[in-house]
Amino acid sequence: MSSFTFRITAEDSSTGARTGLAVTPHGAFETPNFMPVATHGAVKGLEPAELRAAGVQILLANAFHLGLRPGAGAVRSLGGVHGFSGFDGPILTDSGGYQVFSLADANVVTDEGVRFRSPIDGSELFVTPEESIRAQRAIGADLVMAFDECPPAGAAPEVVRRAADRTLAWAERSLAAFDRGGPQAILGIVQGGTDLALRTECAGRIAALPFDSFAIGGVGVGEEKGLVRSVVEHTAPLLPRDRLRYLMGIGLPGDFLHAVGAGVDLFDCVVPSRNGRNGTAFTSRGLVRIRNAAHALDPGPLDPDCPCATCRGGPSRAFLRHLFATGDHLGGALLTRHNVAFFEAFLAGARNAIRSGGFGAFRARWQAVYPT
Amino acid sequence: MSSFTFRITAEDSSTGARTGLAVTPHGAFETPNFMPVATHGAVKGLEPAELRAAGVQILLANAFHLGLRPGAGAVRSLGGVHGFSGFDGPILTDSGGYQVFSLADANVVTDEGVRFRSPIDGSELFVTPEESIRAQRAIGADLVMAFDECPPAGAAPEVVRRAADRTLAWAERSLAAFDRGGPQAILGIVQGGTDLALRTECAGRIAALPFDSFAIGGVGVGEEKGLVRSVVEHTAPLLPRDRLRYLMGIGLPGDFLHAVGAGVDLFDCVVPSRNGRNGTAFTSRGLVRIRNAAHALDPGPLDPDCPCATCRGGPSRAFLRHLFATGDHLGGALLTRHNVAFFEAFLAGARNAIRSGGFGAFRARWQAVYPT
Repeated sequence: MSSFTFRITAEDSSTGARTGLAVTPHGAFETPNFMPVATHGAVKGLEPAELRAAGVQILLANAFHLGLRPGAGAVRSLGGVHGFSGFDGPILTDSGGYQVFSLADANVVTDEGVRFRSPIDGSELFVTPEESIRAQRAIGADLVMAFDECPPAGAAPEVVRRAADRTLAWAERSLAAFDRGGPQAILGIVQGGTDLALRTECAGRIAALPFDSFAIGGVGVGEEKGLVRSVVEHTAPLLPRDRLRYLMGIGLPGDFLHAVGAGVDLFDCVVPSRNGRNGTAFTSRGLVRIRNAAHALDPGPLDPDCPCATCRGGPSRAFLRHLFATGDHLGGALLTRHNVAFFEAFLAGARNAIRSGGFGAFRARWQAVYPT
Repeated sequence: MSSFTFRITAEDSSTGARTGLAVTPHGAFETPNFMPVATHGAVKGLEPAELRAAGVQILLANAFHLGLRPGAGAVRSLGGVHGFSGFDGPILTDSGGYQVFSLADANVVTDEGVRFRSPIDGSELFVTPEESIRAQRAIGADLVMAFDECPPAGAAPEVVRRAADRTLAWAERSLAAFDRGGPQAILGIVQGGTDLALRTECAGRIAALPFDSFAIGGVGVGEEKGLVRSVVEHTAPLLPRDRLRYLMGIGLPGDFLHAVGAGVDLFDCVVPSRNGRNGTAFTSRGLVRIRNAAHALDPGPLDPDCPCATCRGGPSRAFLRHLFATGDHLGGALLTRHNVAFFEAFLAGARNAIRSGGFGAFRARWQAVYPT
């Protein structure tokens, strides 16, 4: 049996927000929490010790990418994803469903699985729920995801329906291929697009399966933000109250305020790292685009209210801008480090607010800074 | 008067090698020493604290590049190069002579100065010894360099002669523009190509000027290694024994062994950072090309004998290789950090060997690892 446990530690009286504690073989994490994305095992530009110092309690890695390079067997032989990456805390791996559909050329989906060309060498590959689970077991994350089909935003109703049915069938095959006697925990994924009735049906059918916890997938894939929020508001409460609820691929500070209020416990997103590399910082006073000429002679820190290693005793905004202007990747790493720390502190603030009965005030305060 | 001092602390009995202590307004550095190159104010990918932890005692920045971007006045307004870069130890700025000749398009050299197009925006600029010194004073390094003309390898004798004469004339103008009452020290540069008689003449004429210390320039600009070494062996002993001798733009471990033996005290080179970013590490057992497939499953550290932050408790060779394979610039930063630490430890080892009378053995041991 997996040693994964999750328990609720506090609940907000006027929203669905709650705090929880999840325990994995590699330690615990508090919820609500945010996982930075270490696609290939590293959050680009950052060392594991920097992630820890930024407050990271759980990391997301990608089984699709690690399975292609260096290969699941190589990761296993190098100590699993923890030994390989050097991050010794809880790690979750995405199953690769989203990546197969969004990145691979010429994929052909059948009920059996997905045939696609490797984005690395063009070779033809075939991935099935069984193969995804086998790779995720070899890679050795604490939490693994069922293999699902994630249709794009705006897909026709029959495409969304077929993807939902396949996701349910693949969920059962993922469970059958999973070693329930091992140390890992497995999460089922609710698909269903923006069709709320279909979401209800999928949530009920997935929740009836013996997963350790559950995720909401297929949101934030290009649809309008109002639709994302209606799906989250609708679906989160349908998932078992006593299980971890993970909203995949979301998001921004404003999304957290909304989704935490709907009862979501866990998030991941590339935004802190991708935007950091592009020169955008999330700060206590709003977005800072460091390439802006306004920062050229600014001797102040990126975020005067932030205790992270980039902001405290670190470079001025002027020097950070200069690093971007001169093509020094240190600039992107320093902004990524800050953004990750900001996201972690933001969720830690949400946890504290929920525990102290102040989530409503927390949400109102931050909605003024991050209105969308 | 500059507060710069230099004194010899030990001398090898059988070679020209010596140890020394240089004191600047921003602290002391021991010699022989190596300056990593922070062209725009940062050693690409590394934070100032990482440089310190790697053993860096003095840093080189580039007045040409900083003068173009963000501009000497901007650097001054941001606390000078120390405040701007965040490195609070001794810093030397190159004058820009080498850069003007090697990087700028369509430069036209007259006795007055050099007209060239900005490599950033194509605008026409004119740099003179006076302008270079003015910029270096604004930038505020502890050690500044006279403005010189550095001819390329293989230049015709009359070109080398004219550049040497210009360098001597510009040395006097650099001194005249320099504030000898300020905190900075200024170094004169010996040119003369591979013509040893011309080197003798230039060394004598430069050494007769009231510079604080002296540098050997115009080597390692494309000529054959044996010629570099004959110039260094010939020129270093011509410079005043009681002054710091700086060999510009050199080099590799084997070059240090040779030049230290010839009485050189200070080096700079882009090799640790440029090669690090390209995946080449200098280790106690020789060069490691981390992209090599041989490292794909290697769980060991980059250099098992190295105490740097990359090698101790850091990533495996397999993970470092993976970072390069997946385009994560963290890989280049980690190799740069190691290479800088290796170069610093190498020179620290040379200092210890000189002090203890073991420089010959040190040189023989390392020549076996780095024969060229």
